[in-house]
Amino acid sequence: MFLMLVGLLFRSKGQFSRFLGGLSWYYLKMDFTIRAATPEDCIDIFRMTRELSEYEKLSDQVKISLEDLKRNGFCQNPFYRCLIAEVPEEHKTKDGHVNVGYALFCYTYCTIKGKCVYLGDLYVMPEFRGKGIGKALMSSVAKVAKEQQCTNLQLSVLDWNTPSMDFYIAKGAQDLTKSEGWHSLRFHGAALDKLAEEAPKN
Amino acid sequence: MFLMLVGLLFRSKGQFSRFLGGLSWYYLKMDFTIRAATPEDCIDIFRMTRELSEYEKLSDQVKISLEDLKRNGFCQNPFYRCLIAEVPEEHKTKDGHVNVGYALFCYTYCTIKGKCVYLGDLYVMPEFRGKGIGKALMSSVAKVAKEQQCTNLQLSVLDWNTPSMDFYIAKGAQDLTKSEGWHSLRFHGAALDKLAEEAPKN
Repeated sequence: MFLMLVGLLFRSKGQFSRFLGGLSWYYLKMDFTIRAATPEDCIDIFRMTRELSEYEKLSDQVKISLEDLKRNGFCQNPFYRCLIAEVPEEHKTKDGHVNVGYALFCYTYCTIKGKCVYLGDLYVMPEFRGKGIGKALMSSVAKVAKEQQCTNLQLSVLDWNTPSMDFYIAKGAQDLTKSEGWHSLRFHGAALDKLAEEAPKN
Repeated sequence: MFLMLVGLLFRSKGQFSRFLGGLSWYYLKMDFTIRAATPEDCIDIFRMTRELSEYEKLSDQVKISLEDLKRNGFCQNPFYRCLIAEVPEEHKTKDGHVNVGYALFCYTYCTIKGKCVYLGDLYVMPEFRGKGIGKALMSSVAKVAKEQQCTNLQLSVLDWNTPSMDFYIAKGAQDLTKSEGWHSLRFHGAALDKLAEEAPKN
């Protein structure tokens, strides 16, 4: 009788497996909360920025300190905003962390589209991936962007980072470098110093 | 006697021509001032943003109004900052404009490098180009960036816009898309709406 019912509900073995897969994912899904970061979260944000920079193979370029992060994000005109993904105590890491992901973003401006959000970092600790936390962080940033009447949510991805690129494209992002030919340029170090020194004195 | 003196000062005809060239450039150089924009400048900034969007072939995508520009740049937490290039009355355009260029920028944040400046627009009216105004605006933004302890000045350029690309590269900018593989991604319209709708309700 059970098998007959199954036969009625699922027209193929594949469809049944997908249902079971979905069901197990549902029951294994972890609770988590997405919330705005506070100054007290900086120690965890700092820890995770270091983990992210290692993944991006950029850890030798790191310049900021925990104090910079605190001062720059929690002043009168903050340079960035941050959302935290927090899991309940029972799911804390072996090192006792409950803050397991973050999304750091800034407001920018475009004289064509108006107010925009630029997502600088999106990170979930490896052991908490595949549970919808990254997607929830991303969606929560989009929600903030809409609440602030921003028309665009932009971000930058390294072309070799295919898991991230695929994730964003699957969510509907447009690759502006590919479709419109936008290149990112940067002045830093000696080039930035020289440029600044050449400014008119008025 | 004069020619002898010239002979002493300049060891070749080429060197003398370069001196004369430099001299004429000096005398033909137009006076201009680079200064922070005020709310009263918005009408001119708005006019120039429209000229720039036409040049970038993006005028059909323009969404912002003069009121948006005023409100977004001159509020408690401004979404952008702007510098204006102003010429003296005797050099005003046939339409009476003395504000002939602008640089519009935002502060952003990178958890590797810290505070950054993102230059959104750099524009000089066509009849005022080749007089060092664009370079002065660019250098003045770099000066502001340094004063604010920013380590990077970033911008985006369309790959077909070779005059702009060449200008920035000649000034020492690094093309991060070419050298490191950074791509710019954007969520907008229906993709942004959908993403925001999927945010957790907590």
